[in-house]
Amino acid sequence: MPALFVCLPLTFSVYNIGMEKKISGKIINRLTLYHYILDDYISKNIEFIASNQIAALLNIDDSQVRKDISILNNSGKCRVGYIVKELKKSIETTLGFSKTKNAFIIGAGNLGMALAKYDNFTNYGLNIIALFDNDHKKIGHSVNNKIILDIEKLPNLSRKTGVDIAILTVPREFAQITADILIKADIKYIWNFTPVVLSVPEDVQVWNENLMGNFLQFTYNI
Amino acid sequence: MPALFVCLPLTFSVYNIGMEKKISGKIINRLTLYHYILDDYISKNIEFIASNQIAALLNIDDSQVRKDISILNNSGKCRVGYIVKELKKSIETTLGFSKTKNAFIIGAGNLGMALAKYDNFTNYGLNIIALFDNDHKKIGHSVNNKIILDIEKLPNLSRKTGVDIAILTVPREFAQITADILIKADIKYIWNFTPVVLSVPEDVQVWNENLMGNFLQFTYNI
Repeated sequence: MPALFVCLPLTFSVYNIGMEKKISGKIINRLTLYHYILDDYISKNIEFIASNQIAALLNIDDSQVRKDISILNNSGKCRVGYIVKELKKSIETTLGFSKTKNAFIIGAGNLGMALAKYDNFTNYGLNIIALFDNDHKKIGHSVNNKIILDIEKLPNLSRKTGVDIAILTVPREFAQITADILIKADIKYIWNFTPVVLSVPEDVQVWNENLMGNFLQFTYNI
Repeated sequence: MPALFVCLPLTFSVYNIGMEKKISGKIINRLTLYHYILDDYISKNIEFIASNQIAALLNIDDSQVRKDISILNNSGKCRVGYIVKELKKSIETTLGFSKTKNAFIIGAGNLGMALAKYDNFTNYGLNIIALFDNDHKKIGHSVNNKIILDIEKLPNLSRKTGVDIAILTVPREFAQITADILIKADIKYIWNFTPVVLSVPEDVQVWNENLMGNFLQFTYNI
C-alpha cells in the first residue's frame, strides 16, 4: 500500500489578517519572493513545498519562513509540507494581488519600455494603462498593447480614469519638473525610478526605487 | 558687516568607520538618498544643508538623519548646517564609491539597455564593462559605448578580466539557465532583476531586485 499523505485544506477562516493588520514591508517583500518560488513549482507540477526548501533558496532561516507563513490565512499544510497551490493563493489574498491597481508609466525610454513589457506585473495586480512621453517620435506608438500618449494629455486622462499611480522613468534632469506635472494632475503615488529625491506635497507618496543604494548594499563588502 | 558663518573642516580623522564597521543596509540606502539630494544642491550651487531639509524631503525624522550622518567621518558642520560638498565626500568615502566595481549586464533587452545607459552608475563606483546576449541581431552593436557580446564569450572574458558581478536582466524563462552559465563562469555576485528566485551554490550571492515586492509594499494600503 502506498504511503498516504492526507493534506486536507482546513475550513476557510473568516479572519483575514491581511485586511486587518499592517504587514511590514520586509514581510511583504519576502512573501513576494515565496510567491515567485511557488509559481516556479507550479510550472514544474510540484505539489508540495517544505519551509526549508524556501529558506534554502533565499538563504534565510527556516524559522523565518514558517513565521511569515503563519501570518497568512493558509489552509493547506501537511506532513510533507505546504500545498503549493493553496499557499500561493493565500499569499495572493493576503497581499491583495486580486485588487487591480491601475498606473501610468511616465517616460517611454528603455526603462519605461522594459516595465511596460513586463507581463508579470498583471499577475501581481499592477495594470499599466498607458505610457506618457513628450517625444513626438514616440507618441502614438504602442508597446505591449499600451499606447504612448503626449504628456500634455496626462491631467485630463488621470482625472477621467481616476488613475493616481505613476511610474516615473524619465531622465534625472527632468525628474522634478515631471513630478510637478504629475502632482498638478492629482497623481498621489509616484514610484520613482530616477536617482532624484523628489520634492512633493504631503498628500503625495513617493517610493524611491533606489537602485544605487541597493547595489551599494549588495556589494558593500566586496 | 555681513554675518559670518565660519564652517571650517575639522582635521581629517584617521578613523574611518566605513572601513571598519558594518553599516546596515537601511543606512546605506538612506545615505545614498542623502547623496542624491546633495548632488542636486551642488548643481544648484547651494553650499549648506540642514538635517531637517533632508528629513523633510525624505519624509523621515530629523533625528534619524543626524544619527546616520554621525556615523560618517564628516568634517564640515556649522551653525547653518552641513557643508554640502564635505558631507557628499564623506558619504562617498564611507560607502566606498571611489572603489570601482566592474560588472557585466546579461541580457540586452530594454531593461539591460536602460541600465547600460544609466550614466549615474559610474558616479557610484559601478562600471559596466559589456553586455551579453544570445541574439545575433544585437551582438556586435554598442550601447552607450559598451559592446554587446555573445553570451558564449562570457566565461572566457570573466576569467580574463576578473569581473565577478553580473546584472541579470533576461526574460524570466531564461533566468535560471542563464544563472547556471554565470555560475560556471565564476561569477560570484548576481544582481537579479528577474522575478525568479535563483538556485545558486553557497559561494554565489544574489541580490533580488524584487520590483513587485516593492510595488506591493508601496501600494499595500491603497
